[in-house]
Amino acid sequence: MIAQGGLWIVGLGPGPVHWMTPEAVEALARASDIVGYGPYLDRLSLRADQRRHASDNRDEIDRARHALRLAVEGRQVAIVSGGDPGIFAMAAALFEALEAGEPAWRDLAIEVAPGISAMQAAAARLGAPLGHDFCAISLSDNLKPWDIVARRLSAAADGDFVIALYNPASKARPTRVFDAFALLRERKGAATPVAFARAVGRPDEAIVVTNLGEADPGLADMSTLVIIGSSQTRFVSRGQGRPWLLTPRSYGAAR
Amino acid sequence: MIAQGGLWIVGLGPGPVHWMTPEAVEALARASDIVGYGPYLDRLSLRADQRRHASDNRDEIDRARHALRLAVEGRQVAIVSGGDPGIFAMAAALFEALEAGEPAWRDLAIEVAPGISAMQAAAARLGAPLGHDFCAISLSDNLKPWDIVARRLSAAADGDFVIALYNPASKARPTRVFDAFALLRERKGAATPVAFARAVGRPDEAIVVTNLGEADPGLADMSTLVIIGSSQTRFVSRGQGRPWLLTPRSYGAAR
Repeated sequence: MIAQGGLWIVGLGPGPVHWMTPEAVEALARASDIVGYGPYLDRLSLRADQRRHASDNRDEIDRARHALRLAVEGRQVAIVSGGDPGIFAMAAALFEALEAGEPAWRDLAIEVAPGISAMQAAAARLGAPLGHDFCAISLSDNLKPWDIVARRLSAAADGDFVIALYNPASKARPTRVFDAFALLRERKGAATPVAFARAVGRPDEAIVVTNLGEADPGLADMSTLVIIGSSQTRFVSRGQGRPWLLTPRSYGAAR
Repeated sequence: MIAQGGLWIVGLGPGPVHWMTPEAVEALARASDIVGYGPYLDRLSLRADQRRHASDNRDEIDRARHALRLAVEGRQVAIVSGGDPGIFAMAAALFEALEAGEPAWRDLAIEVAPGISAMQAAAARLGAPLGHDFCAISLSDNLKPWDIVARRLSAAADGDFVIALYNPASKARPTRVFDAFALLRERKGAATPVAFARAVGRPDEAIVVTNLGEADPGLADMSTLVIIGSSQTRFVSRGQGRPWLLTPRSYGAAR
């Protein structure tokens, strides 16, 4: 009988160690094997007895299969993810691989360690833009047709949700974020607050606060989280620096 | 001139210390005054030199004003929130109070320390239900009219989003979750996966996985986070125990 391994799907958060949970730190310390996208593994200080399995950022399913195979061989495996593995990250790829894979994988002890996701880091810097009902939408059309993305953007506008856009642009898809802004400009007011929050928590953090009429979608890259307000989202000025963004808890009330 | 205090809006996460970030722990350690809902303060081990300001769970704006006044007096204040303060929690109340309050409050150094929110803890236990585009909606109609809630639920169904329902029920509003399920049952298939995740991470954690046709909305209380799948969300069986929930990254693809 094969020794029973375990598998942790670990959220590293947006970058800084002060946003990594103790659970994630413990899961990494317990692992014999750590699997992940190379730059995420580079953030970690692994021990000499821990095996490092780096991959590029494309083959998420291959990476997940590799982690599952190691666990079935009896290894204690941590597969790491930026942000929260449950939000546009490794947890979905892992369970897709499990679903399509060896029956024995379904007997594994699998745990997910959640993490701070990019929209939460961005919101923390901005004030309270996600203070009420919101949607999170990935603009990537690698794995879904663009008409689904467009349908969801339209529905999010119809519902007057705050919108958090993940994966707004990449070298392979530089124009989708322009399409998204064009669609939203037809449905939402030009004064709607917008924020581009890039690499929050990392040395190259950059935040731009603007509005839908004036926003330049070209500011968004793969490291950017875009937030577009609801009809209720507003700016709150402060003594110095850019204004806060606030989506209040109430709807349609006088200020 | 008044000594300049500071204000941290601190997310404690869903409950266990292994889900509290080091940043949150540091902000609490630095505080001279800790403000919050009594049961949240009861989770913390405060030092003898730290002042505790407990309140009930209703007067969030009063609590926020109290924190802002202490900070303007030169105190180092932490105002605590369950989950992530940015998601249906204290950050919005704090900036609402700031917006309507004393001009001097706008000069304060204010920082938000994000935390793991209830939907992330629930998702971690369930597999990957939030693996693709999703909405977060509060069913509370204390501060917004029910027709806004209904409009958002309808839009979320139109967009085929996964839906995370916060504040699904309370003693004052026991029936709104039934109304929400009735609305969603008209728009989504009976086989749509549904999860009731109660008090995740706390001793009374309880999780029920079912589908929209069979779900009993009466399972939801104030401590429950409800997740309702998209058309793509599916169950993935495991060797023992309840199935995982998976919302894959792809849309409409063959399994």
